[in-house]
Amino acid sequence: MLKVPEHQVAGHIAIDGKLGPLVDDQGRFFKPLQDDARGENEAKFYESFSANKNVPDHIHRYFPVYHGTQLVEASDGSGKLPHMVLEDVVSEYSNPSIMDVKIGSRTWYPDVSEEYFKKCIKKDRETTTVSLGFRVSGFKIFDHQESSFWRPEKKVVLGYKVDGARLALKKFVSSNSPVESKSMPNCAFASEVYGGPNGILAQLLELKAWFETQTIYHFNSCSILMVYENDSMLMKGGDDAQMPRAQVKLVDFAHVLDGNGVIDHNFLGGVCSFIKFIQDILETDTSQLENGH
Amino acid sequence: MLKVPEHQVAGHIAIDGKLGPLVDDQGRFFKPLQDDARGENEAKFYESFSANKNVPDHIHRYFPVYHGTQLVEASDGSGKLPHMVLEDVVSEYSNPSIMDVKIGSRTWYPDVSEEYFKKCIKKDRETTTVSLGFRVSGFKIFDHQESSFWRPEKKVVLGYKVDGARLALKKFVSSNSPVESKSMPNCAFASEVYGGPNGILAQLLELKAWFETQTIYHFNSCSILMVYENDSMLMKGGDDAQMPRAQVKLVDFAHVLDGNGVIDHNFLGGVCSFIKFIQDILETDTSQLENGH
Repeated sequence: MLKVPEHQVAGHIAIDGKLGPLVDDQGRFFKPLQDDARGENEAKFYESFSANKNVPDHIHRYFPVYHGTQLVEASDGSGKLPHMVLEDVVSEYSNPSIMDVKIGSRTWYPDVSEEYFKKCIKKDRETTTVSLGFRVSGFKIFDHQESSFWRPEKKVVLGYKVDGARLALKKFVSSNSPVESKSMPNCAFASEVYGGPNGILAQLLELKAWFETQTIYHFNSCSILMVYENDSMLMKGGDDAQMPRAQVKLVDFAHVLDGNGVIDHNFLGGVCSFIKFIQDILETDTSQLENGH
Repeated sequence: MLKVPEHQVAGHIAIDGKLGPLVDDQGRFFKPLQDDARGENEAKFYESFSANKNVPDHIHRYFPVYHGTQLVEASDGSGKLPHMVLEDVVSEYSNPSIMDVKIGSRTWYPDVSEEYFKKCIKKDRETTTVSLGFRVSGFKIFDHQESSFWRPEKKVVLGYKVDGARLALKKFVSSNSPVESKSMPNCAFASEVYGGPNGILAQLLELKAWFETQTIYHFNSCSILMVYENDSMLMKGGDDAQMPRAQVKLVDFAHVLDGNGVIDHNFLGGVCSFIKFIQDILETDTSQLENGH
């Protein structure tokens, strides 16, 4: 019944006998509780968050629905292990383009071990985490020329500097082939995916407003997942034209801590920087349209 | 003509034959160019900023006016040295209460030397820089019981945790004696200093809005100076009642860098956290008034 997710772009992947998440055909995502405190911490967060009445409904929808934990056969053949049962946020898409962006200008936090601190800050300085307040962790896009998914190598993605991150965010909403590195991404879908009343930008601004005042949780090392339906783009303009159903979801809560009355300025600063990148792409796109390009 | 500033609360101080800033009686503040690249960098920033037409007028007013550099007799007796000539932002106050708050969740930045990085991150972790996104660097308040200024020791201020920072921000706008550590600060001036259309909060929100889009400068290791006239408080309600003239100024630009198209998410996240602290004090103050306390 359970299988390896087709559309995972970051994190542990359940291939080659390794432990990783699984999905069923009912739209559920099974994430193994990691061996150390992290798995427990993430399950504890989902328990707390899903029952938290101080979190408004319009914010709850940015998080995967939580269905408790369940013992299921682990992907690494080690027998039955506890898994968190979550909403599979891409189950209703046919050709989802997906990007995972880790938010924050640091992934470590007060009171971690020196070993963990050193590991994190090294990676934070090597990637765009420090310079941009976010880093692209991985993405895949539907390539219309090839009629198949294209994804850059993890090593390449983690090597992005400022320009690399900007280019990836343009490629993510472009219809020309991502493989040809010399071609400029055309940002054909920018206004539909990033813009509009239900687009990515509007959703990010709603999240940002909540982060300006919420002092309940600190979302250390957490990611924003962006998803949209790429298939429907092909039908654009026809009678059956569909919306791209662009959505933002927050994922990965193994390092969430209590806010203790302080806002999550690390997440907030990062998401503001990310928002500015999206706004810049929308503005360039609009000004090109106005100039007839 | 030049003398040691009476109201400096942080940074190098021109006493005991040391090099530090001086003031004249015309409202000008003379800051020596530090020996290394930092002084040059700060003067370069002031040159660039004061001529920058892309910075709106309502933002220019949060920065000290810059009058160029001038050779003046240094405070350490080493002869004539180049000084930046700046507006002395407290010259028109009789009994200014002043606080210096260093903004950001880090004081280091990409491409600094390992030595500088290590020095900064150690202090950032020891103070509230990492946890709060800001740290109080120093403050002085006019103590009405004693009719004199009170200032906590530098060592004490740098040892603040979350609660210490919150208490300092309350003391800063209280009329009861700051010395009695067991008494709760009464926040008597909170609504006049922090609140209102011209108060600290309104000014911080205006700055924040600019930081959400400006990608010209990154204000590493820069401080927000809060000043208000404490003397006038005594005349409160009388015919000569004065406004506290609360003002926010940004100071210390030795580590400002070009933004290169990226917002200053480090400053922005920190200032948002600081804003939330001010809002919390105003809300407590208002709810206490409503409850008749």
